[in-house]
Amino acid sequence: MLHWDASVMMPAGAGDSRAEELATLAMLGHRELTDPALARLLEAGLAEQEGLDPWRRANLREMAERRRHAVALPDDLVEARSRAASAAEMAWRQARADDDFALLAPHLDRVLGLTREAAAAKAAVLGLAPYDALVAEYEPDVDSAAIDRLFDQLAARLPALLERVEERQSREGEVAALAAVPVEAQRVLGRRLIAALGFDSERGRLDDSLHPFTGGHAGDVRLTARYAEGDFTDGIMAVLHECGHALYEQGLPADWRGQPVGQARGMMLHESQSLFVEMQLARGRPFLGYLAGLLPDVFPTGSAPRPKDLVRHVQRVSRGFIRVEADELTYPFHVMLRTRLERAMLAGDLVVGDLPGVWRDGMRDLLGVVPPDDRQGVLQDIHWPDGAFGYFPTYTLGALAAAQLYRAADAALPDLDRQIADGDFAALIGWCRANVHAHGSRLTGPELLQAATGAPLSADAFLDHVERRYLG
Amino acid sequence: MLHWDASVMMPAGAGDSRAEELATLAMLGHRELTDPALARLLEAGLAEQEGLDPWRRANLREMAERRRHAVALPDDLVEARSRAASAAEMAWRQARADDDFALLAPHLDRVLGLTREAAAAKAAVLGLAPYDALVAEYEPDVDSAAIDRLFDQLAARLPALLERVEERQSREGEVAALAAVPVEAQRVLGRRLIAALGFDSERGRLDDSLHPFTGGHAGDVRLTARYAEGDFTDGIMAVLHECGHALYEQGLPADWRGQPVGQARGMMLHESQSLFVEMQLARGRPFLGYLAGLLPDVFPTGSAPRPKDLVRHVQRVSRGFIRVEADELTYPFHVMLRTRLERAMLAGDLVVGDLPGVWRDGMRDLLGVVPPDDRQGVLQDIHWPDGAFGYFPTYTLGALAAAQLYRAADAALPDLDRQIADGDFAALIGWCRANVHAHGSRLTGPELLQAATGAPLSADAFLDHVERRYLG
Repeated sequence: MLHWDASVMMPAGAGDSRAEELATLAMLGHRELTDPALARLLEAGLAEQEGLDPWRRANLREMAERRRHAVALPDDLVEARSRAASAAEMAWRQARADDDFALLAPHLDRVLGLTREAAAAKAAVLGLAPYDALVAEYEPDVDSAAIDRLFDQLAARLPALLERVEERQSREGEVAALAAVPVEAQRVLGRRLIAALGFDSERGRLDDSLHPFTGGHAGDVRLTARYAEGDFTDGIMAVLHECGHALYEQGLPADWRGQPVGQARGMMLHESQSLFVEMQLARGRPFLGYLAGLLPDVFPTGSAPRPKDLVRHVQRVSRGFIRVEADELTYPFHVMLRTRLERAMLAGDLVVGDLPGVWRDGMRDLLGVVPPDDRQGVLQDIHWPDGAFGYFPTYTLGALAAAQLYRAADAALPDLDRQIADGDFAALIGWCRANVHAHGSRLTGPELLQAATGAPLSADAFLDHVERRYLG
Repeated sequence: MLHWDASVMMPAGAGDSRAEELATLAMLGHRELTDPALARLLEAGLAEQEGLDPWRRANLREMAERRRHAVALPDDLVEARSRAASAAEMAWRQARADDDFALLAPHLDRVLGLTREAAAAKAAVLGLAPYDALVAEYEPDVDSAAIDRLFDQLAARLPALLERVEERQSREGEVAALAAVPVEAQRVLGRRLIAALGFDSERGRLDDSLHPFTGGHAGDVRLTARYAEGDFTDGIMAVLHECGHALYEQGLPADWRGQPVGQARGMMLHESQSLFVEMQLARGRPFLGYLAGLLPDVFPTGSAPRPKDLVRHVQRVSRGFIRVEADELTYPFHVMLRTRLERAMLAGDLVVGDLPGVWRDGMRDLLGVVPPDDRQGVLQDIHWPDGAFGYFPTYTLGALAAAQLYRAADAALPDLDRQIADGDFAALIGWCRANVHAHGSRLTGPELLQAATGAPLSADAFLDHVERRYLG
C-alpha cells in the first residue's frame, strides 16, 4: 500500500520519509521471517507434513522457501538494499528527466554492489548460482538453464518471423493515426472494460500513475494506468494488462487469504495472466471487434476507428527503443538484452559506467536500431535502480506461458471467439480462475502449466500464435 | 497512512483485510516498544541524562513514557483492541446508516471491556486512576482533576453567556441562507486558503473523506474535508480546522523528525492549533472580511454573501444535536456530556445498553434539546466504537488553550487584524511556529502554555473571547 501510495498519491517532497518507512517495514518483515521461534515451528510442521493435505503441505513448502531466502541475508543488508533502492529510484527519476546517466551511475553502482552481496549470500544458502538466486526471488521455478533454452528457441525462429511480418505490413501501407480522445473518456472506458472482464471494484480500484502497475493484495487490488490523448490504445491496453494481474489476485483462493499458499506462485504466472488478457485476448481480432463497438461512445462524433483499422493499428509491429511500448514480436529482444546485461553485471563482467554504450551496441545487434539518447536507452526502466535484478526474464516467460494457456483455453471452450466478440468473457476468465488463479501456490509453475495445458513450458505455442496472428 | 487510505481511497470490501493489517502493525509496534533490549538502552540513557541538552533529555522522557504505556499491556490485548475497534467501527457505520443502536451495542460492549482491561492495566503501572490512564494516551499533561476544574469554570459562566447571546441574536432576526456553491469550486477555494495560511503541499495533500481529519505525519500530512453544496462554510471551516492541525505537523522541528521529541506533545495542543485557525482566526471578523473578498470568484454571479452577512452566518449560535456542527459556545456542552458518560462507563456505573436513554437525558440537562433519533444522538461519533475513551475532553481543553494562545499572539503582534483582513497570515502563523510548533515535545503542555502566554491553562481567555466576539 505504501508503494502504491508513493506512485499514486504521495506528494513530491515525501520521498525521503517514505524511503525510511519502507526500509523499516522491510527490516521488520525480515526479522519476523528469521525469528528462531519460526524455525522451530516450521521444522515441527515439516516433520509431520506427510499426514497433511496438499494445501497445507504446499503452505509449509512456501513458508520454508521464504524463510530460506530471508535467513540468507542479515537484517542490515535488507534495510540497506531497501534504502539504496529508494535513493536510486529518486536519482533515476532525475536522471531520466535530464537524460543524464551520470546522475544515476553512483546510485546504481551502490545498488549493484548490495545486490551482488545478496546474490552471493543467497547462492550459498540456496545452492544456486548467484543470478539464479535472484531470479528465484521473483520466480522460484525457473533457472538460467531454462531461460537459456527458451530464449534460444525464440532466437532461432523469431528474427525471421519478425522480418516476414514487417515485409507484409509494409506491403499493406501506412496505418492512419487515431483521432484524439479526452483522458476522462478513456478512464470511463477503462472502468467499463475491467468490469466487463470481471474485476470486482468492491475489492480494488483503478487509478492513474506515471507507470502502470498492479499493487495491493487479493483483498484490495490497486491497478493503475496512464492515458495519452493522442492514442487511446496505449492507456487502454495498459489497463487491460494490469487487469490481468488484478483478476489473478482477485481469483486467488479465498480460504487461504493471508497464507503463503494463498498467494501467486511467481512472476512467470503473474505475467502470464496480464499478457493472457492484453496480448492473447485484447489484441486479437474478436476482442478488437467488441472494443470497436464501444468506441462511438468515446470518440468525438464520427471519428471512431472502424474495426479493421483498429486491428491494424493495434497489431502494428515495429522496432522501437522502448520496452513498454514494444509489440509482442520485438518485446522478447528487449528482454534478452536486459537479461544478458544484468547477468554480466552480476558476474562482474560489466561495470555500471560502461552500461550506456553496451546498451546501444546490444540494441543494434538484437533489433538493428540505436536509441538516440540514454532516456530512450538504458535510463528507460526502473528495475535496476530499484534493485530488481533477475526480474526481466519473467516478462518473456510470462508471454510464452500466456500463449500456451490461451491455446489450452481455446481448445477447451467451444465458440470462444464469438463470445469474445459479444463482450462475454465469463467462460474465458472462468477458465483462468479454475486452471490458474484458484491454485494459488499449491502447484509450482511447471506443475500448473502441465496440468492446465498438458505440456511443459516451451516457446512453441507463442511462436505458433505469432505466426497465426501476424502471417495467417 | 493505512488509516488515511481507509477513509479516503479504500474500496468498500477491503475493510476486513485492512483490519488485519492494522492489528498486525499495532502488535509489531507494541512488540518493538516492549523489547527488553530497548529497556536496557533506555535505562542507560536515563542514567546519563544530566549531561544531555534539553532536547535529548526530553526525547528520553518521551521514549520512557511511551514504553511505560506499552509495557502495561500484553501483545495480545493490543492486537485484540485494534481488531475489536475495526469491527466496531464497521458495525457503527451500519448502525448509524440504519439508525439502529442494537447493531453497535455488542461490538461497543466488547470494545468497552477491552478498554477497561487496558485502563486497569495502565492505571497499575502508571500510578494513575483508570480514566486518567486513558486520557494520558492522548494528552499526558492533564488529569481528571484538571478537567473537572476547567469544566467547572465553564459550567459556571457559559450557560448564562449562551442565553445572552441567543437573546441578542434572536433580536437581530433570521440569517439569510447562502446560495449553493458547486463542490469543485469549494475544493479550489480550500486549496487556495490553506496555501495562503502556509500549508506546504509538497509535503502533504488535501482530499475528500466522509469525516474530515488530519493524518500522516510531519513529512507527509494528509488532511481531508467534506463539502456540501448548500452551505460552503461547513466544508471550508473544516478545511481550515484541519489546516491548523496540518500546520502544526509541518512546523514540528525538522531536526528531530522521526524521534519522539520531534512529535506533537498531546492532543490538547494539537486541538489548540486547529481551533486557533478555525475558531480564533477564521470565524473572526477580519478573516471573514478577507474570505468574503474571495467569494465572488466562487459563487454564481451576484450571489456571494456580503461580509456582514457572512459574519452573521458563521457566528450564528444554536443548540443543535451534532457535536461537529456545533458553534464554539455550545460545543463544550457536547464534550461535557461525553466526558461524563465515558467516565461512568469506565467506572462500571453505566452499561452500553443504557447509553441511548442516558444520552437523551444528558442533552436535555445540558443544552435543553433532545435528539429525535440515535443517529443524531449516541450514534453520531466514531470515538467510542474506535476505542478512543478519554479523547473527548481534549477538544475543549484545546478550545481553552487556543483562546489563551490567540490572546498572547494578538498582544505580541501589532496591526494583526489589518494583516488578516489583507490575507497576510505570515506573522500570525509565524508566531504559532515559534511558540508552539517548533517546540515539538521538548516542553510539556503546561510548560509550553506558560512560556507562550505567561499563564497556566484556564478558561478565562476562552470566556473573555466568547463575550467579546458575541456580545461585544
